[in-house]
This record gives sequence, structure tokens and C-alpha cells, in this order.
Amino acid sequence: MKHSRPADIERTSMAIIAEELRQRGMQVPPDQEAVVKRVIHTTADFEYAENLVFTKNAVSLGVAALRKGTPIVTDTNMAKAGISRPGLEKLGSHVMCFMADPAVAQRAEAQGTTRAAAAMEQAAQVCPGAVLAIGNAPTALFAIARQMERGQFPAMLIGVPVGFVNVEEAKEQVLALCRRFEVPAILAMGRKGGSNVAAAICNALLYLAGDMLDPAERGWQ
Amino acid sequence: MKHSRPADIERTSMAIIAEELRQRGMQVPPDQEAVVKRVIHTTADFEYAENLVFTKNAVSLGVAALRKGTPIVTDTNMAKAGISRPGLEKLGSHVMCFMADPAVAQRAEAQGTTRAAAAMEQAAQVCPGAVLAIGNAPTALFAIARQMERGQFPAMLIGVPVGFVNVEEAKEQVLALCRRFEVPAILAMGRKGGSNVAAAICNALLYLAGDMLDPAERGWQ
Repeated sequence: MKHSRPADIERTSMAIIAEELRQRGMQVPPDQEAVVKRVIHTTADFEYAENLVFTKNAVSLGVAALRKGTPIVTDTNMAKAGISRPGLEKLGSHVMCFMADPAVAQRAEAQGTTRAAAAMEQAAQVCPGAVLAIGNAPTALFAIARQMERGQFPAMLIGVPVGFVNVEEAKEQVLALCRRFEVPAILAMGRKGGSNVAAAICNALLYLAGDMLDPAERGWQ
Repeated sequence: MKHSRPADIERTSMAIIAEELRQRGMQVPPDQEAVVKRVIHTTADFEYAENLVFTKNAVSLGVAALRKGTPIVTDTNMAKAGISRPGLEKLGSHVMCFMADPAVAQRAEAQGTTRAAAAMEQAAQVCPGAVLAIGNAPTALFAIARQMERGQFPAMLIGVPVGFVNVEEAKEQVLALCRRFEVPAILAMGRKGGSNVAAAICNALLYLAGDMLDPAERGWQ
């Protein structure tokens, strides 16, 4: 079998993705390339070259936040599990998810909201100014929108929930607020996204922030 | 905001998916519908209605295995994190991933193979006859193919790795072997797939096996 080393497989895959982007006439700005290519690597779906929207300097601002060790908060344990441990460790960062926290379940029950929304309220209290990575719940995005409206801002927002109900509206609303308040944001517009996409974007930023451009340096996963 | 209860959102989403499948002229056999719809629910990608291949009676055989409490083994901790805990608990089943096992790293090093392949060897020793759910590594599928050739069979194979190198070949090879040895299998042919897709297929089967057809019964995960 050719290419049995994961680092070789990744290099070959990224070259194939770059070549197919070129063939399809999809032009990706150089500063966004590492993120777009990693999302396509994770999904094999070239639609993300068109779906992903970046606010001004989102990548360099996100990288700067991660270089300071800013923690990441996800809306699912699945996204948390997909974020590179070596990538976090190199920067002295860490990742948290509050979905399984009993306090979050209580808060959701008391407020008649979803656990995802309550988890974002918990995050805003416990670790304000984190990088928020939302791959699942539009209600998490609506909660973040309310936080921004009252003056609480994340270091960065990665907003890529997937779905058919309220998802597109949540992304549109939060993108407008991120632009208004100059919060760096990367969003997958439309229905598509997912915990895997949220993790892939975090990993692309972590690898840039940690100068881990060689896949062999990062290990496998 | 309408539809703020997750169970309502899921019901509405599934109705939208069913209607769009109909509009697109995509006919899904009734026994495969729960799996196909859940994968589209997870990805918002209708291509899966055409990519997913089921061996004969794969769904009913997989459901029967899960009803007996057969454990699930994944090739990533991300897929493991995405599998429904209430779904597993209702059936007395559990999910394992050997990727972070130090013995697996040693085995991979000693044999000059990938950790994903070594993890499948570990699984075949520690819990033979499991439901194998592969969302990431084609080398895991090649390892399972070698196991089948020497007479070791999983209860079921969910084979949906994503990628650009060796992925399509691995799926073709393992599908042929599953058909030859009558191992129930669900595969996403082509490049697409992922840990999220592997988890979604497991969850669809768990919900069928546990008669958890009402989303409210399953809670929000």
C-alpha cells in the first residue's frame, strides 16, 4: 500500500484539495487557505470553499488569541474530542464543553431554554473572552448574540452549526453582530456545518498559531 | 423564537428532510430510511442518500446485534463522543476507542503500521465480534479486511472514512469482503464520510434497537 504514513497521506490530500480548488476555479484568499483546506480535508465537501465566511482578519486575530493561550469552548463533547491535544498543549491552551455539567441542565430547566444556550451562559461566566466553537446548536448562537448585545464578547466565534431549523437565521444574526462589534468570526453560511467542521477550524488555527505546519510534527488525529 | 425545544426541532428537521428527498426524486428503501435521514440531519448533505450502501438486511441485522448489547468500537474518540449515551444504556451496550491506548501506539511502532490499524487489531483481540464504526482512517478498514480474510468477523461494519487517499479503494475492498462473508455493513462510498457520519449511523441503529423513536425520549445530546 502506498502512502501508509498518516503525515504523507495528509500532505498528498492537501495537494489534491489545492489542485481541485484550482480546477473548479474556486479562489481562496491566502490567509483563509489553511482553514478552508482543512475543512474540505475533514468533509471532502468543496462547497465549504463557498460557504465559509471570514470577518476581516479573522484568521490572524484568532491565531493571536490562541497564541496567548486563550481557551476554546465548544457546544458538544464531540467537537471537544476532535480538537488536537498536541495543538492545545503547545500553546498552553485547553478546551472545555459545559453540555454535561449538571449546573447547565439546572439552568436550562429553570430558564426554559436549551442546554446548549445554558452552556454558553455558563461559559460566559466561567471563562469570559474565550474562543467559542459552535458546531451543533443554533440556540448556542442565539445565546452568544444576546451576550454580544449586552457587551460580553468572545475572543473569537467559530459558528458552524448544521441543520434545517433556525440555523441559517442564527448564523446571519450572529455574523451581523460580529461585524458590528468587530468580533473575529468564521461562519459556515447556509445549512451545512457540524462538530467535525468546528473542530477542523479550531485545529487549522491551532496549527497556524503553534507553527505546526508539518503534519508529522502534530502526530495523528 | 419558534421551535426552541430540541425534540420539536428534530421532528421538524426530519419532516423537511423527508420532503426534500421526495422533491429531489431520491427514493430510499423503507428499512434504510432512519439511517439515511439521520446522516442527512447530521451533515445537511443530501448526497448521502446516494452514497450510502447497505448490504442485505444490514439495518435489521445491526439492530439485532445492538439489542443483544454488542459493544461498538470506533476509530476516533470523536466518533465515540458522538454516540448517544442514553441509546447505549438502554441496550446495556457501550462504546470503546483504542486510539489513545499506549499498547496500540507500541503495536503500531513495532509493526510499522498506523495507530488506527493497530487499534483494530487491539479491538479484534479485546472484544471480537463487536460493531465496528470507522469514520476516519482507511487503514482501519484495510486492517478489518485482513481480519475478515483470516476468518475474524465483526457483528457489523459501519465504514465511512472520509478522505482523498486510499479511502475509496478501502471502502470498495471491504464492501466486497462483507458481501462475500455476509457481514452486515453500511458504507459511504466515494470520498465523503467522517466521525460525525459514523456516530450518526450508530445512533440511528441504537434508536431503532431501543425503540427510541420519539426524540424527546432520547434527550438532547
